[in-house]
Amino acid sequence: MNAAPSSPQRAVVLLSGGLDSTTVLAIARAAGYDCACLSFDYGQRHRAELQAAKRIANALGAYRHQVVQLDLRPFAGFGGSALTDESIAVPTAGLSSGIPVTYVPARNTIMLAIALGFAEVNQAQHIFFGANAVDYSGYPDCRPAYVQAFSAMANLATKAAIEGQLLEIHTPIIHATKAEIIQQGHALGVDYGLTVSCYQANDAGEACGVCDSCRLRKIGFQQAGLADPTRYQSAQ
Amino acid sequence: MNAAPSSPQRAVVLLSGGLDSTTVLAIARAAGYDCACLSFDYGQRHRAELQAAKRIANALGAYRHQVVQLDLRPFAGFGGSALTDESIAVPTAGLSSGIPVTYVPARNTIMLAIALGFAEVNQAQHIFFGANAVDYSGYPDCRPAYVQAFSAMANLATKAAIEGQLLEIHTPIIHATKAEIIQQGHALGVDYGLTVSCYQANDAGEACGVCDSCRLRKIGFQQAGLADPTRYQSAQ
Repeated sequence: MNAAPSSPQRAVVLLSGGLDSTTVLAIARAAGYDCACLSFDYGQRHRAELQAAKRIANALGAYRHQVVQLDLRPFAGFGGSALTDESIAVPTAGLSSGIPVTYVPARNTIMLAIALGFAEVNQAQHIFFGANAVDYSGYPDCRPAYVQAFSAMANLATKAAIEGQLLEIHTPIIHATKAEIIQQGHALGVDYGLTVSCYQANDAGEACGVCDSCRLRKIGFQQAGLADPTRYQSAQ
Repeated sequence: MNAAPSSPQRAVVLLSGGLDSTTVLAIARAAGYDCACLSFDYGQRHRAELQAAKRIANALGAYRHQVVQLDLRPFAGFGGSALTDESIAVPTAGLSSGIPVTYVPARNTIMLAIALGFAEVNQAQHIFFGANAVDYSGYPDCRPAYVQAFSAMANLATKAAIEGQLLEIHTPIIHATKAEIIQQGHALGVDYGLTVSCYQANDAGEACGVCDSCRLRKIGFQQAGLADPTRYQSAQ
């Protein structure tokens, strides 16, 4: 029994609702891909992200947006991440070197694994993933070598791959600075006012302005020479 | 900042509640590992498995049992698996060649990815995984080449690996026949009456006796020359 033919133009896009993944979606759309977006509700503090992702998928013409419930909070009590563990403070004092406490164990691997399954059921041979090895140099699972190893594994993992429909993982912004990402998205018409990057955004999607993610984003707009459309909390 | 030292004796065991993963847990325990078991509630029809997993983790002295909610049913409408999609019948007419309809896209990759995160937060450098390339030769993600590729990726993915705590994935039954698995577990004192293998077990954990998994299990006990403790449904 043969599987139905896959669409060469179909792609799964990992969409967090932040600046990077939104730019990646815009890049995939501009390249002509039909995009099914995948977001994760993994108990993150910054839940306004998910609302943003929904609006962005719609605004950029994705044909589908799927939120997968994936509760990783049971992991938090065993030395988890500031993004899911209420007892670990989100750092706001400025960027530091090394692997940040906002690292979530194996998060990109888990998300890519689910994207792999989602790609197979959508008969998509492309995954677009906003990994970035510049700003997130401390995250092991944002490096090109990691992405290559995941691709090699993925092409041994699925029925689709066994049947010759190999998967390609696209990381179009992996070597870009935040300013370059913003300039590229701006050129593609992205409204970054829709995006939420803040690790501790409030329910209205307003940013704290002081967490690592906010700092990187602010500097990015400054260096890009573009107006920052981010909505900040009033205490800012 | 260094991570706390990991325990060389700590392992994560993927435990479905079936015969294979239970044998793997018994093997890990007999080898002296402290075991944290991980099970998945992924919307499977055979939910009696999860109850069985809980009893087995307790009976075999795991120090922890974690069930992760992972609802993959949204994938079902796009050509999913008979194990999650009510509209695809579980085959009961006998074993056939090729990739079975009970294949769940990327399931082992998703489970191993979450096990990778669970291992990191538990400071475990070992994952025990009941992949089997004999009975499940049709599943791409049960082959040794796949497991090796996953290991290579995993050791580029995590903070623990970057800090030198490499992960090892153990697949002690990958080349064993069902009869050999049963004989090994029997020698280790496993009570297979606790396990549920059936793809459509009822709420009491009683097996249908005719699905692929039941057929493989039945033949296994016959070939092992051991009494089959499986509780079958009365219609059987």
